[in-house]
Amino acid sequence: MRTVTWQASGPAVQLIDQRALPAELKTLALTTVEDVAEAIRDMAVRGAPAIGAAAAFGLALAGQTSTAASSEGLWEELQSSAGRLRLSRPTAANLGWALDRVLQAGRQRLPEGPAAVRAAVLAEAQRIADEDVQVNRAIGRYGAELLHDGATVIHHCNTGALATVDYGTALGVIRTAHEQGKRIHVLVDETRPRLQGTRLTAWELQQLGIPFEIITDGAAGHFLRRGDVAAVLVGADRVAGNGDVANKIGTYMLALAALDCQVPFYCAVPISTIDTRLASGAAIPIEERDASEVLELELSGLPIAPPGARARNPAFDVTPARLVTAWITERGVLRPPFAKSLATALEGSPPWASS
Amino acid sequence: MRTVTWQASGPAVQLIDQRALPAELKTLALTTVEDVAEAIRDMAVRGAPAIGAAAAFGLALAGQTSTAASSEGLWEELQSSAGRLRLSRPTAANLGWALDRVLQAGRQRLPEGPAAVRAAVLAEAQRIADEDVQVNRAIGRYGAELLHDGATVIHHCNTGALATVDYGTALGVIRTAHEQGKRIHVLVDETRPRLQGTRLTAWELQQLGIPFEIITDGAAGHFLRRGDVAAVLVGADRVAGNGDVANKIGTYMLALAALDCQVPFYCAVPISTIDTRLASGAAIPIEERDASEVLELELSGLPIAPPGARARNPAFDVTPARLVTAWITERGVLRPPFAKSLATALEGSPPWASS
Repeated sequence: MRTVTWQASGPAVQLIDQRALPAELKTLALTTVEDVAEAIRDMAVRGAPAIGAAAAFGLALAGQTSTAASSEGLWEELQSSAGRLRLSRPTAANLGWALDRVLQAGRQRLPEGPAAVRAAVLAEAQRIADEDVQVNRAIGRYGAELLHDGATVIHHCNTGALATVDYGTALGVIRTAHEQGKRIHVLVDETRPRLQGTRLTAWELQQLGIPFEIITDGAAGHFLRRGDVAAVLVGADRVAGNGDVANKIGTYMLALAALDCQVPFYCAVPISTIDTRLASGAAIPIEERDASEVLELELSGLPIAPPGARARNPAFDVTPARLVTAWITERGVLRPPFAKSLATALEGSPPWASS
Repeated sequence: MRTVTWQASGPAVQLIDQRALPAELKTLALTTVEDVAEAIRDMAVRGAPAIGAAAAFGLALAGQTSTAASSEGLWEELQSSAGRLRLSRPTAANLGWALDRVLQAGRQRLPEGPAAVRAAVLAEAQRIADEDVQVNRAIGRYGAELLHDGATVIHHCNTGALATVDYGTALGVIRTAHEQGKRIHVLVDETRPRLQGTRLTAWELQQLGIPFEIITDGAAGHFLRRGDVAAVLVGADRVAGNGDVANKIGTYMLALAALDCQVPFYCAVPISTIDTRLASGAAIPIEERDASEVLELELSGLPIAPPGARARNPAFDVTPARLVTAWITERGVLRPPFAKSLATALEGSPPWASS
């Protein structure tokens, strides 16, 4: 079951509603662009690759449901819809990347009329989704080489099938190692405030039969310092051209603890998450979400803070490249200096091109 | 209103029940040693100095309620009660320190008979409580010199009036600076899993009219890295002879982030929390509490993890002395090397001896 799929009848974008997990596995069928944008904003779908695929299908939905009779009219609608989807969340690089790919595919067919544009847009969205699964499998294969049998790893946030179209990035690495027969134990950062670790990663690991224990985000340093941990594995929402990593809030402190304890810190990241237009992490927009996520208890809505208390809620932080041991991509494991390794890795065909 | 007091009628140890805050300010009147031990274990009272005072009064309670007719009989009961109280929580140094002081006071009066022992034990417990307030005031005065007008500080866990008999240690420093007219803004670490920051520190700061914002523990690094923060202030549960600090889980990662961002990291600590018998933090016992604190939502008891999920829950971690800029004690601000500064500071009388 994919996290994000196209549903021809409707038509609709079908999503697993990640807000309801682990209590309930339910899906949403979204029939308007605004519904897709709202699902991204409210984190019914989250994880940079999953957001990218959802936005791509959202744009395909705009094409399929448009009544425009001309290429020009359809193109205006697609651009307007892409603009609305682009604003839904600011940090994940895959959102803009996927929308640009879908728009580009449509534009090339404008001379052939609106039916051809609609078909091209939908086909490109589907291609993005299918490629994401291949990308994750490749990341998993490269990354699993870094994990030895019996390794305990710390994982932050959720980077599994739910954060992607299927399989996962950092969690895909763990999954591949597990499928190779290695015994991997995962310390799952709960990941405040939205508890993606406790709610989503724990649920996925349970489905996969991979042993794990949940810890508070602040406890990661304790376990690293005790020498129990072989590696730290995270994903990314956007990587700058110098290798600085924007990822779920708390990642920077986790990377510092890994370095202090001489434990490798790996960032599993599809090439689509790398934004080479940005010179460093300082240029990555950091979303600040509503204070209620901190002040109230997830799911229950119960207040935990005194009435009137205020909160700050940055959803991401930036981990400087100097703290990253390696970036695990579908083109191989990139070691510092990042820009040079990336350039080398991008030469030649992707690893699944012949498959 | 003191967090821990002696109630002659009963007699009873009276405590603010910190589990009920911020929703409700209620007190408990505990009439048996076992009830006091259970209140410490279940964190109705927490914070190293408050635990010390509660245990001291618990032992006084054992004395007052004992029916022993001889000094020997009473002494046996006191030792047995001290043993039960000592086991209630393992990490806070003040627990054993306070019990030893009370026992010592009683032992000196054994030749005078049980009434004299009972009186001495109660008087010593009361002295510990009264001194704690003086200690905190002195810590506040020394520490406030380190904060400039307009400073934003990050604070972890709760170290306020609730964590002590009154006034507070790290929060006492903030409070003194505020009382001196300095404008201090506090970023309050929520402090998972028990949320002492959100529930207790936010509540205390609100009472005091000190502006604050609550953040998740993982967000501290983000604000430090942005250059917004002038200092990090924490308390301690036990400090080893070399200056290693055992404090609420998450402190180590916070100290790493402060160092990486060149922000001073201060530990406000009564001398009674320093355990010079221990050569380093590696010898400090680290309590691991029940997994349910991580798996269920504070207050509501609602599950957040999938059924069957496991968790690890170390309540404290150890921050190596190399990450501490200075230890703020009632004998002055100690800078590295810790052991030498401590020895110098302990010469002469305490700062309130003449008052």
